[in-house]
Amino acid sequence: QIDGGFWQARQRVNREVTLPAVLRRFTDTGRFAALRCDWREGMPQKPHIFYDSDVAKWIESAACAREAGPLPEGVEEAVEAAIDELERHQGVDGYINSYFTGVEPAMRWRRRWAHELYCAGHLMEAAVAWRHATGRDRFLRMMCRYADYIDRVFRAEKSAAFATPGHEEIELALVRLYHATGEPRYLALSKHFIDRRGADPLDAEENEWARRYNQSHLPAREQATAEGHAVRACYYYSGMADIARECGDEELQAACERLFDNIAQRRMYVTGGIGSSTYGEAFTVDYDLPAETAYTETCAAIALCFFAHRMQLLAPRREYADVIERVLYNGFLSGVSLDGREVFYTNPLEITRAHHFAHPSWKEREWLPDTRRVEVFSCSCCPPNVTRFIASVGDYLYTRDGDTVYMHQYMGHTARIGEGEICVRTAYPADGHIQITARGLAGKRLALRIPGWCDRFTLSAPHTVAAGYAYVALGERACMTLDLDMPPYLVQAHPRAADAAGKAALKRGPVVYCLEGVDHDFSICGAAICAPLAAQVTAAERFGLPVIDAAGTVPGEGTGEALYAPLTALPRDVTLRFIPYYAFANRGESDMRVWLPVQRRTE
Amino acid sequence: QIDGGFWQARQRVNREVTLPAVLRRFTDTGRFAALRCDWREGMPQKPHIFYDSDVAKWIESAACAREAGPLPEGVEEAVEAAIDELERHQGVDGYINSYFTGVEPAMRWRRRWAHELYCAGHLMEAAVAWRHATGRDRFLRMMCRYADYIDRVFRAEKSAAFATPGHEEIELALVRLYHATGEPRYLALSKHFIDRRGADPLDAEENEWARRYNQSHLPAREQATAEGHAVRACYYYSGMADIARECGDEELQAACERLFDNIAQRRMYVTGGIGSSTYGEAFTVDYDLPAETAYTETCAAIALCFFAHRMQLLAPRREYADVIERVLYNGFLSGVSLDGREVFYTNPLEITRAHHFAHPSWKEREWLPDTRRVEVFSCSCCPPNVTRFIASVGDYLYTRDGDTVYMHQYMGHTARIGEGEICVRTAYPADGHIQITARGLAGKRLALRIPGWCDRFTLSAPHTVAAGYAYVALGERACMTLDLDMPPYLVQAHPRAADAAGKAALKRGPVVYCLEGVDHDFSICGAAICAPLAAQVTAAERFGLPVIDAAGTVPGEGTGEALYAPLTALPRDVTLRFIPYYAFANRGESDMRVWLPVQRRTE
Repeated sequence: QIDGGFWQARQRVNREVTLPAVLRRFTDTGRFAALRCDWREGMPQKPHIFYDSDVAKWIESAACAREAGPLPEGVEEAVEAAIDELERHQGVDGYINSYFTGVEPAMRWRRRWAHELYCAGHLMEAAVAWRHATGRDRFLRMMCRYADYIDRVFRAEKSAAFATPGHEEIELALVRLYHATGEPRYLALSKHFIDRRGADPLDAEENEWARRYNQSHLPAREQATAEGHAVRACYYYSGMADIARECGDEELQAACERLFDNIAQRRMYVTGGIGSSTYGEAFTVDYDLPAETAYTETCAAIALCFFAHRMQLLAPRREYADVIERVLYNGFLSGVSLDGREVFYTNPLEITRAHHFAHPSWKEREWLPDTRRVEVFSCSCCPPNVTRFIASVGDYLYTRDGDTVYMHQYMGHTARIGEGEICVRTAYPADGHIQITARGLAGKRLALRIPGWCDRFTLSAPHTVAAGYAYVALGERACMTLDLDMPPYLVQAHPRAADAAGKAALKRGPVVYCLEGVDHDFSICGAAICAPLAAQVTAAERFGLPVIDAAGTVPGEGTGEALYAPLTALPRDVTLRFIPYYAFANRGESDMRVWLPVQRRTE
Repeated sequence: QIDGGFWQARQRVNREVTLPAVLRRFTDTGRFAALRCDWREGMPQKPHIFYDSDVAKWIESAACAREAGPLPEGVEEAVEAAIDELERHQGVDGYINSYFTGVEPAMRWRRRWAHELYCAGHLMEAAVAWRHATGRDRFLRMMCRYADYIDRVFRAEKSAAFATPGHEEIELALVRLYHATGEPRYLALSKHFIDRRGADPLDAEENEWARRYNQSHLPAREQATAEGHAVRACYYYSGMADIARECGDEELQAACERLFDNIAQRRMYVTGGIGSSTYGEAFTVDYDLPAETAYTETCAAIALCFFAHRMQLLAPRREYADVIERVLYNGFLSGVSLDGREVFYTNPLEITRAHHFAHPSWKEREWLPDTRRVEVFSCSCCPPNVTRFIASVGDYLYTRDGDTVYMHQYMGHTARIGEGEICVRTAYPADGHIQITARGLAGKRLALRIPGWCDRFTLSAPHTVAAGYAYVALGERACMTLDLDMPPYLVQAHPRAADAAGKAALKRGPVVYCLEGVDHDFSICGAAICAPLAAQVTAAERFGLPVIDAAGTVPGEGTGEALYAPLTALPRDVTLRFIPYYAFANRGESDMRVWLPVQRRTE
């Protein structure tokens, strides 16, 4: 239960604004109507192959939100109505898919690229969540029947035209379904999909590009680098980690660790964004992290959290929680506007408005990400993924390992831990002051993560520190204060990350800051940040967090009208105003920078 | 006659290496064989629609080179053999085009985009040059017959399916033919094409993109911004300037001035390159000058010199000669390797090798220019354009205005001026020391251009200075020394040129310098240049010019294995070695930078 601080506010906006807004947009665009399976040629709003997944993620959002507070009017009814439709059109064999049932019935299980199993997976996740939120199991039973049917088609009969899904998702969903029902066949089916991918002869029929795009280029246990479509990849790796954990499969776990390290140490933006290229919405090569053309889909940021969370369930390595935190406060949160109404599909780390010129002959020099969030996309995977992720952010706080309770993230919350309870009060990440109360957990150890970015902390309770966690032995009732020192600081990237070479980014705690043109009366395109850092956390709290003023420079003087002129003046000192990266593009179109050239500070 | 210094050496390489190399490549690729008009379906090396222009430019190169020194063995024979073939297949009506004659006879004058008049223009230029070089007028007479036929088809009968050429060139060629023959119909036909472009209803049938691409979006006299394909554009503007001069057309001259200023003040790289976008090889919008993705075709640099030269024939504004000089020593000369064997089609201002990664799924993140020159392209317009331009570089030295002889460029040469002679001895641009001797020009004024980049000069003869020229009254025999002060200096770009914001480029005299990775034992991707400039012209002469060592910085320390780490060390001082930009990519693939962030120099 997130009951205070930063995330309570975000969850409220999410529940009260974003959730009904997505419902409205999805209703307007025919996503709910598609469930009626009555579309016919010539009618408007032809259903899309992934509409079921949009609705499913939205249902899951409603389910999670329902546990935190009252749902806005009409939401619960819309969920039940959607389930009604799904039930009405479920086949006698258990099949549920509004597109193939309504539009192309002859093509069922014929097209690997048609998101059929992907939709099934999201519906399973929604059903599990809705049962958990309401206690009602109608939807869950529907999805069990469907899962049984899929198991028959793909594992027993092998009668489909393909062996593994073109877009992963069902792997992790089946593990959730297994946990919700105890039915081991669902776990076995998930493992089947993991095992067959890249190993089944049917997978090998696709071309090299396609195989890499959907991670079918190698069997799971041989994969070592994050490849292809970033969302698909991290959904897949999440399923792999689930199976590694459930089955004690060390070889699979080792593959997961390799893949995670490849992402976290070579292929992740400083914002936690992943998938640097618009071509295939995909990973590219190590250290290829261009700022302006970053694809970094919001869904990919979410998927990376799924993966990292499952890794921390396997082993409490601080790096996993560090990555989740990096994504949470930066590359994920940038995906939704502060008012909760609009969403980014892509999350660039740099905007130069001059590059987005309109021209009669062509729109842009090359592909560039959007500079403004929008209400809905034709490919609208991100909005409901945002709502369900914010609603379920509490899932990422804890893991347990024997008698040790690991607290990985710091949010104002109250948690039931077995018979006991832990309560946290904090304004984090506005500051690093965290009050923790634990009751009824005598004999247990509480492990508090010391974030990787944190150089100094104080903890009021006796503790030992090991591998990034501070361990506190709990009595019947324990109160303690953790203070994480949170000065602004500059980070640099690995020298092989050519696009950030010679540059620095400003952070405070887990939050990456950025420069926006709208805050300055000069162009920020030529701005540099001074080192050593001379920064001041300004009391003026905006966008949920303080802003930071830091010493920087801009060109000393212009060229007049000339296109080129001798450089006669030194860069001049200015104060640069930084805002949290997640808050960029909330005040119209603006130039934006995360990485800035480093200027040596004089005096 | 270029008989000393920098350009004599380049012309020798051009004549002895590049000219026969292009002959060999064009022979190997069937460009000469195409003239036989005997290609049939199923045979290899299908002739291309612009092969005639490739051959023509090469013939023109041979013609110009022949005036400077003996042609390599086989060159003259190859020219005459090519003329033989052209003559053999010239139609009774005068038509010459190996593609349409040999491959698609039914399509003659049906396809505006098929380079038919463009090829005709290049053949006319070649014929004029060959007659000038040899005194033989067979080729010229052939081309007059062809021009007569074109005049009939396009001006009298209007029987072609289009009204103006899809690729300009014939406009300026017809003016040369007019000068060579005195036939006013050729001038009238050129004016006809200029007048009709963008005004004829047939031109209006194309879409907006196409019209802008080939400058048919507006009538000539209404154009104000450089638009579309950069080579087409500057060939066209050259023709416009020719007609403005020949016909005293002030409205047309005003349009030319607007277009020139738009290029020189808004749309030209610091290297003189033009055409910033690969899409349409085209101009984009004001101040859009990205360094890494610069298209800046070698032919476009040449075309800009054509245009600027014709403008200085209209009026001796220093800006025209400044632009020619900028192009000559930078964006044009970079187009050919130092050894004369290989050519760049595009001339980027920045190379980051890490961006040119090979990947199983896709080759590159976006379009990027080549990082190495090559021997031949399928679209091989540039190699013979390079050879003819280097061979004819002497054409850009002088203009006359009444009794005043303007010397715009400084090269070692001897020039016949009427009954008199001017002789220049200089190592320019290696240094700014220029010795000038004039004989037989008593009563004339010599106007010596003081380049725009030059802050201080000394001239040994009594002189007055006005608008960028030093005027010297000549006696029967005059000797003087002009010393242009040539310290290295930094330039900056207009603040609206976002890609150069906060950056500087190093120049010395007219020469832009660049940084190449191969000269450094650290990555230059994070390098900055210190201001105020602390540079030293190093005696070690390479690439025809001295190199320059300048104070700069690189990141203080790496991140170890980490992808991101706190920035703890200040940028550290290093010495950066700069080479002339035109010499980049002569030692294998390397990172390269023209623009560097500006670091304030300490101490």
